[in-house]
Amino acid sequence: MTLEEKIAQLGSRWAGNDMADTALPDDETINVAPMEDVFSVGGALSLEDASRDGLGHLTRVWGSYPQTVEQGVAEVIRQHEVVLKESRLGVPALVHEECLTGFTTYGATVYPASIAWGATFDPALIERMAAAIGRDMAAVGVHQGLSPVLDVVRDYRWGRVEETMGEDPYLVGILGSAYVRGLQSAGVVATLKHFAGYSASRAGRNHGPVSMGRRELLDIILPTFETAIATAGAGSVMSSYADLDGLPASADPWLFTDVLRDDWGFEGTVVSDYWAVPFLASMHRVVANDADAGALALTVGTDVELPDTIGFAGLLDKVKAGELSEDLIDRAARRVLLQKAELGLLDEGWTPEGSVKTSGVDLDSAENRAIARELAEKSVVLLDAGPVLPLSKDARVAVVGPCADDPRTLMGCYAFPNHVLPRYPERGLGVQIGSPLDALRNELAEVSYAKGCGVTGDDRSGFAEAVALAADSDVCVAFVGDLSGLFGHGTSGEGCDAEDLRLPGVQGELVDALLETGKPVVLVVVSGRPYALGEYAGRLSGLVQAFIPGQEGAAAIAGVLSGRIVPSGKLPVQIPRHVGGQPGTYLQPALGSVDSAGISGLETRPLYPFGYGASYTDFTIADLRLSVPEIGTDGEFTATVRVANTGDRGGDEVVQLYLRDVVAQVARPLTLLTGFARVSLEPGQAADVTFRVHADRTAYTAADLRRIVEPGDVEVMVGTSSLDLPCRAMLRIIGDVRVVGHDRVLTTPVTVSEVGGGG
Amino acid sequence: MTLEEKIAQLGSRWAGNDMADTALPDDETINVAPMEDVFSVGGALSLEDASRDGLGHLTRVWGSYPQTVEQGVAEVIRQHEVVLKESRLGVPALVHEECLTGFTTYGATVYPASIAWGATFDPALIERMAAAIGRDMAAVGVHQGLSPVLDVVRDYRWGRVEETMGEDPYLVGILGSAYVRGLQSAGVVATLKHFAGYSASRAGRNHGPVSMGRRELLDIILPTFETAIATAGAGSVMSSYADLDGLPASADPWLFTDVLRDDWGFEGTVVSDYWAVPFLASMHRVVANDADAGALALTVGTDVELPDTIGFAGLLDKVKAGELSEDLIDRAARRVLLQKAELGLLDEGWTPEGSVKTSGVDLDSAENRAIARELAEKSVVLLDAGPVLPLSKDARVAVVGPCADDPRTLMGCYAFPNHVLPRYPERGLGVQIGSPLDALRNELAEVSYAKGCGVTGDDRSGFAEAVALAADSDVCVAFVGDLSGLFGHGTSGEGCDAEDLRLPGVQGELVDALLETGKPVVLVVVSGRPYALGEYAGRLSGLVQAFIPGQEGAAAIAGVLSGRIVPSGKLPVQIPRHVGGQPGTYLQPALGSVDSAGISGLETRPLYPFGYGASYTDFTIADLRLSVPEIGTDGEFTATVRVANTGDRGGDEVVQLYLRDVVAQVARPLTLLTGFARVSLEPGQAADVTFRVHADRTAYTAADLRRIVEPGDVEVMVGTSSLDLPCRAMLRIIGDVRVVGHDRVLTTPVTVSEVGGGG
Repeated sequence: MTLEEKIAQLGSRWAGNDMADTALPDDETINVAPMEDVFSVGGALSLEDASRDGLGHLTRVWGSYPQTVEQGVAEVIRQHEVVLKESRLGVPALVHEECLTGFTTYGATVYPASIAWGATFDPALIERMAAAIGRDMAAVGVHQGLSPVLDVVRDYRWGRVEETMGEDPYLVGILGSAYVRGLQSAGVVATLKHFAGYSASRAGRNHGPVSMGRRELLDIILPTFETAIATAGAGSVMSSYADLDGLPASADPWLFTDVLRDDWGFEGTVVSDYWAVPFLASMHRVVANDADAGALALTVGTDVELPDTIGFAGLLDKVKAGELSEDLIDRAARRVLLQKAELGLLDEGWTPEGSVKTSGVDLDSAENRAIARELAEKSVVLLDAGPVLPLSKDARVAVVGPCADDPRTLMGCYAFPNHVLPRYPERGLGVQIGSPLDALRNELAEVSYAKGCGVTGDDRSGFAEAVALAADSDVCVAFVGDLSGLFGHGTSGEGCDAEDLRLPGVQGELVDALLETGKPVVLVVVSGRPYALGEYAGRLSGLVQAFIPGQEGAAAIAGVLSGRIVPSGKLPVQIPRHVGGQPGTYLQPALGSVDSAGISGLETRPLYPFGYGASYTDFTIADLRLSVPEIGTDGEFTATVRVANTGDRGGDEVVQLYLRDVVAQVARPLTLLTGFARVSLEPGQAADVTFRVHADRTAYTAADLRRIVEPGDVEVMVGTSSLDLPCRAMLRIIGDVRVVGHDRVLTTPVTVSEVGGGG
Repeated sequence: MTLEEKIAQLGSRWAGNDMADTALPDDETINVAPMEDVFSVGGALSLEDASRDGLGHLTRVWGSYPQTVEQGVAEVIRQHEVVLKESRLGVPALVHEECLTGFTTYGATVYPASIAWGATFDPALIERMAAAIGRDMAAVGVHQGLSPVLDVVRDYRWGRVEETMGEDPYLVGILGSAYVRGLQSAGVVATLKHFAGYSASRAGRNHGPVSMGRRELLDIILPTFETAIATAGAGSVMSSYADLDGLPASADPWLFTDVLRDDWGFEGTVVSDYWAVPFLASMHRVVANDADAGALALTVGTDVELPDTIGFAGLLDKVKAGELSEDLIDRAARRVLLQKAELGLLDEGWTPEGSVKTSGVDLDSAENRAIARELAEKSVVLLDAGPVLPLSKDARVAVVGPCADDPRTLMGCYAFPNHVLPRYPERGLGVQIGSPLDALRNELAEVSYAKGCGVTGDDRSGFAEAVALAADSDVCVAFVGDLSGLFGHGTSGEGCDAEDLRLPGVQGELVDALLETGKPVVLVVVSGRPYALGEYAGRLSGLVQAFIPGQEGAAAIAGVLSGRIVPSGKLPVQIPRHVGGQPGTYLQPALGSVDSAGISGLETRPLYPFGYGASYTDFTIADLRLSVPEIGTDGEFTATVRVANTGDRGGDEVVQLYLRDVVAQVARPLTLLTGFARVSLEPGQAADVTFRVHADRTAYTAADLRRIVEPGDVEVMVGTSSLDLPCRAMLRIIGDVRVVGHDRVLTTPVTVSEVGGGG
């Protein structure tokens, strides 16, 4: 290969460049990536010109504008053919797409948002979902999916909270690895993003600078990536936009070489986030121009520039001028070509037509929707049944609120209807999706409706109707929350960050007005982030948190409200009490916790803790048994508890194991999720849940930044949330301090064995 | 000296242990230090027992309970005598006290809070104040003052914002150094606190964990300490409570050895913050018990434990058991004894009686009050004169609000009346201090008053009277803001952190109610932190920010309102627009600034920028001249501007120099204060202000964590705030990258030369 041909393999071209927002007024811009309007206009090359020496990636042929499957298949074939025809070697381009709530394309099933996956605590289900997503993508010629997001939530105000699986690194790591296994089982490369630290952007502001030291990075942020690479073999990693302590992630060789390649042995590709390369010049200002940005990114470890070749367009001149080693080009090209080979793109006989199925593809199959529904059902979190849940079938129910009858509020910002279709208002939503109002009407006898207000804005003109409706009902169910969108066009989602945790717009005032009627009010929050509900909690007659539940979410919510479904979702983030106080998740040392009451006037106790979720049946967890009282620093132990369904309905409980390091070299979180299991039990049934915990699971980054297992006491705590841990025992770790390497044990296997007749 | 005697020199005993809150109900606790109720009760030793082997420090004999000067002098002598009598060697104890808003003792002048010093931008005045404070303290036998606070504000919610000099490291470093010079000119050792990082406690929560990397620490947090040591010779440093990236500051040898001792060559003493040593066990949990905490703190670099010997009580056993090297005891004892020697405590003929003045001491002299008044006058910031300021002398003025007639709202949390006297409600305030209402009545013809509401609480019962009064006036002046206190007993001050930046209590609602009258409303915010005023700004007829202005503050505020004083204060922190969005100060790279609009829906522009302050006269700044267009990486240049008073009253302008590094290895703040000068000009008068800037002033912590001066372009910007910088020029730095050591130039000298006849 010539130098030019190798460099071309590191580039990409976005199909979206060819599209104009024809349906929108001239002065309206709806970006689907940050500053798209800046980068896509003007200088973008035609596909022909971009393919002269070959092309690394075709960017989002499916995900940029609405097409039927037939149109999409034809377009993928056409673009492949251009690449093959224009280039000497005819190396096919790799087709990548987004798939964060399902395949981001017109008409494909919209699964719940990632934050709802977090609420299921069900890795097997996530894996099934990802396998289904992968099968659909592979069928239409997609080779790589830009998911999952493995960022750990650090600040609820960040718009991308909905794209994460919550605030605990173990939960995110386990669920994220399941996603990777599922997607890659279909032959589609998963992409772990965003490497690393993005979720801690200052004040939750998208792309904002990240104040963070190495220890927090090593203990909280990086383990999710490490787990997905070590246990699931993820094939690609995407760079984060944000700077970490001043150094942009993609300019940080420690992250991309020392950690990712050397420590973890990662052999896949590193792709840039969209325009993260030119951002090194225009936003981070660590280089003077795009060409320098390209050289820096490549040197540090970016192999492929997305979504277009901008910074990497300068690589050729840099090498020719002797300013950049061709070895770096070779290193990246080798990784890209290796991946293409593994994907079969370099196989003899590969053809554009052969890379796609031309018939029988259904991107919104009944099988997909069944998975979407199961996810939605397992993700709805009952916070408080109050006196009225489940709803009486013959109650006269007033349904109110902006999330009651707008299906878009059920979908995340990477769902095609919210991601791309706002540019094409004439194309509808592309999928069948009902609203909670529709779904409730299917389950209850007498349902009336008034919107009350919008998700955003300060229009209170609908309050009176809603209040009158509530006053005339037996119970009012108020649906409030988010409408996901992009870059300010939503209340949740990429670039839709929040100043604080008040319900958006005048929705909080609507709730107050409804409560003033004196009628029982059930609040259903349909949102991508947790909102502060302390102001309402004591006055409500029921409270449900539905994290963006996707295409089948309406029936899932209605089923929980009606009692058809026994709720089993658990909070992957806390529900805070107060609108301020961010950043702050459950991972706090004593001085960030209630243990420091008296040192600050601020309250830290959340309204509902991480891991919490109520049910319509009752569970007990008891009888903690440790296999041994002490282990060596390289030993392991088991912790067993008995969980029993003592209520009168079948249901699921998520049994959670937390550890506390009593004394460590550094201030450590008081509780740290170390294992969990979703257990289904019929009434009267009981099971023993056994966690097998290796000493590595107590490892942390010590004062000298080495990861160690240290002798000393560890409190073992099991229960149903991070603050409901009735089973406690002390384990002693003995022996010498042990330094732990990249071969460490990253998971806590769990076995569930039924026991006879209740606990 | 025996081992026991050396160890005793590292300890202390708090006079406050002998005091009970006799005047308070049994169930009420008012702490003056975090968890005082936990530590002071029970096990505290008598002074006799604490002095068997000698004693390092006597803790706050003056600052713990109300005494007359005569009583205090007698008590200091008594305590000295106990120490001398009980111990074999008779080494006197060092007496330390607080002095953050003046000498924290009964009846001493209460100067403005530190945040108001910041607003003066007047180091010479701060030095005069500190010299006066030092003279008073020295006169009554105090050897060390626990000031200044050199923390740089990172989050406005933090309760201790009022104790800082603002959010810019250069401003804080220069003013803090002036304080050190002043205090130490009187022979009183200054204590730089809190070393280091405390101000970035998570979510502004007191003692909360600090997420921060080395670069932010090196570039933003540490330079204030470095400057005060290198340029003012500060004699002592106090450890911070908080952990930095998990490692408690007092357990961090990099901070206390590598940086403080080795790099900076600091030879004074390190004292612990109150109970910071046992907190290593009880709160940070990095050691198992107090004795281990003592050994760790000593090893890392704490020389003296305050306020009582708790952790250090275990040192003897540790050394005897061979677990701790006696060399570490010797190292700390040598530093303490050296300091005592320098203070004359080891001089032959030293006596307790000789260490104090027994007559002629006036802790609230007219000279003190004149300085307090000058500070207050120079610190009041006129944000917007609107149509009604200065007030017409014959206007009928309705004065409203909880800060109008409560003198305590003029004083900081370390002012004795707010710090200690809440425990002794029968003792009044101890100093003569008027309220803004009193002061306005002195200046205006017709002033009426209604309180409206309290600083805290939700009592709106006074709204109606206040609104009626406003409706019946020509103009309403509303005084809102803070009441400083400790550990939840206030809205600002140590342990009085805020959830968000709303005005406390129902004060914001009161302002709304007043505005609804349609009468012109002037808002005067008397506060220790900036509050979000965006909601009111467009509707007000005048806006004044008075940072806690001290004993003479009332007349200063009234003088600005009446026009007697031409305001000249400048904001040492931004005034934010929105109640959320923290943390966030003016030091932002592009991605935290308005340059990233479109990437997040959040607005970042403050309501009023750092450095801003209006006047009743007009100034122009123009004609920027650089001495040379380029310098070497070890060169220097001058930047000269002409400032002219083009209005019709004499006044002061603060001319501010900011630099912008156009391209750097890391994301850097877009504007960084690098020099400033307060210039007094009569109408028609002009002056040339020349900043002499060494290349070192452009140094920053590079990708590899070395501090470097780098070749490249630097934009030089001069103006009157961080966002009003009309004078701009580009300077080129040439030559090789230069690594900068501890001998770097830390200041930017300024000369002001009058020029004839206006600019």
